Amino acid sequence: MFHGLSAFPLTPMNEQHVNDREFVNLIQRLVSARVDSIGVLGSTGNYAYLSRMERLRVLQLAVSAAENTPVMTSISALRTLDVLHLAEDAQKAGASAVLLAPVSYQTLTDEEVYLLYEQCTKSLSIPLCVYDNPGTTKFHFTDELHGRIASLPHVRSIKIPGVPSNLEAANVRINNLRELVPSHVTIGVSGDPFAATGLNAGCELWYSVLGGLFPKLCLRMTQVSLKGYSAEADQISTQIEPIWLLFRQYGSLRVISAAAEIMGLISSPSLPLPLQPLNSSARDLLNSFLIEISSMEES
Amino acid sequence: MFHGLSAFPLTPMNEQHVNDREFVNLIQRLVSARVDSIGVLGSTGNYAYLSRMERLRVLQLAVSAAENTPVMTSISALRTLDVLHLAEDAQKAGASAVLLAPVSYQTLTDEEVYLLYEQCTKSLSIPLCVYDNPGTTKFHFTDELHGRIASLPHVRSIKIPGVPSNLEAANVRINNLRELVPSHVTIGVSGDPFAATGLNAGCELWYSVLGGLFPKLCLRMTQVSLKGYSAEADQISTQIEPIWLLFRQYGSLRVISAAAEIMGLISSPSLPLPLQPLNSSARDLLNSFLIEISSMEES
Repeated sequence: MFHGLSAFPLTPMNEQHVNDREFVNLIQRLVSARVDSIGVLGSTGNYAYLSRMERLRVLQLAVSAAENTPVMTSISALRTLDVLHLAEDAQKAGASAVLLAPVSYQTLTDEEVYLLYEQCTKSLSIPLCVYDNPGTTKFHFTDELHGRIASLPHVRSIKIPGVPSNLEAANVRINNLRELVPSHVTIGVSGDPFAATGLNAGCELWYSVLGGLFPKLCLRMTQVSLKGYSAEADQISTQIEPIWLLFRQYGSLRVISAAAEIMGLISSPSLPLPLQPLNSSARDLLNSFLIEISSMEES
Repeated sequence: MFHGLSAFPLTPMNEQHVNDREFVNLIQRLVSARVDSIGVLGSTGNYAYLSRMERLRVLQLAVSAAENTPVMTSISALRTLDVLHLAEDAQKAGASAVLLAPVSYQTLTDEEVYLLYEQCTKSLSIPLCVYDNPGTTKFHFTDELHGRIASLPHVRSIKIPGVPSNLEAANVRINNLRELVPSHVTIGVSGDPFAATGLNAGCELWYSVLGGLFPKLCLRMTQVSLKGYSAEADQISTQIEPIWLLFRQYGSLRVISAAAEIMGLISSPSLPLPLQPLNSSARDLLNSFLIEISSMEES
């Protein structure tokens, strides 16, 4: 499952509850598009704002709606004890894999992060993906630490943040990491604006926010790159540039949730406070591009 | 209550539970020393690793043990809904004030943070202290935003992170903030190594980690500075420099918990995983200074 397109859907919610029906619809769109895997309750899926019970229920809905498409779920939490509980829930609910980021309150040392992954993988019987996202965790992995953690049992992929925008520099970055990571562990790019370059530089998959809403388009970009047609992948990414600009300025979550609202797929508001919806001028910009990207999706 | 020394005790805990008896003993030490207020469940009190129910129970223990000393408690959480629940709990349990940091998963905008404080203060009947700590929240306050939030009802203090180490620069920093903040809102310094400079530069109180374990020493340093004896405050802070060095290198929580363990006040381990205890070489350094600081405490 750790190749191709891993699509990360929203978890539509308001101050009262998660909207089950809308969430299931989003999952079904991904199944119809034949994405390689679905990553529920990632950053885009608002896991950080949900309780253990809510996360379990959302995961159960996803596993049931995903049919044969593998579902990965985040088990990240500040406390190891909670990570272990979430891992237990994920396995019982039938997740195909778990995603773990070293989220932190107190700054973590390399050794603390290694021991977290060691303790967690000891309790697992399903694959784990290492979630490297310093923007949300405040933790910066060294390649050497990635290598040590990737050698633990059950680790099968690393979700890295963006790569350098220059392809040569991206190649160096991926090659350096690749040398320290066992070959059975794939490297997946995230930070959607970097995806084409990351895939062209040798990443085996794209952990994608946009793929959660426009799976066919993102699948096409992933597949052309993985087949070696780098220029075509770059071309698709360039066509999506208006979205990447909004992602960079407002954060991908606010943009993608506004897009799903405008498309009538989810109700408004769809984010937990204190997160505010995309402001109206950005929403206008987004709106003007949605017809184009929707036609790219269906072409 | 927002002047002088606000002492932040540890919440001694392990993977099974909070140690109630040890926690109450720490509170009683602070009451005996006559600190101006007690800040429970701050960063040093591990609030981020505890559930709502655990936080309520710890607060109840603190209020009961603190007798007439005012108790402030953190109500910080990623989701506004949880902040409001924690505010409700704090008021019911008899807290004298609440401490709120804009902790974040998704990066927050200035407007989102303002609206968080606005919504929270609407539900409050007790004072609120704004907790500015970019190291844990990833949010950077501008002075202008501090001014807007400080003008909301119930806001009575701002807990700022360290000040510039140069006194003149610290004066400028405090004066700039002071100009934008109503006079009934005090400014308190945190980041213990900066405390003497912050107090000498016009901060009205010290939100102190070390004060949670060595209250008499920290009260003395606070009082001499507030009485205008800047040089004496600097002198005391300089004497504590070996501790500040360890704080900077290992984080104050790991150091202060190790100190309390060595002093026999709390059991080991005392921190929630993934946090590891202070390593043995740092512990040796700490140990060698504890006799000196303990005698300063009692002198």
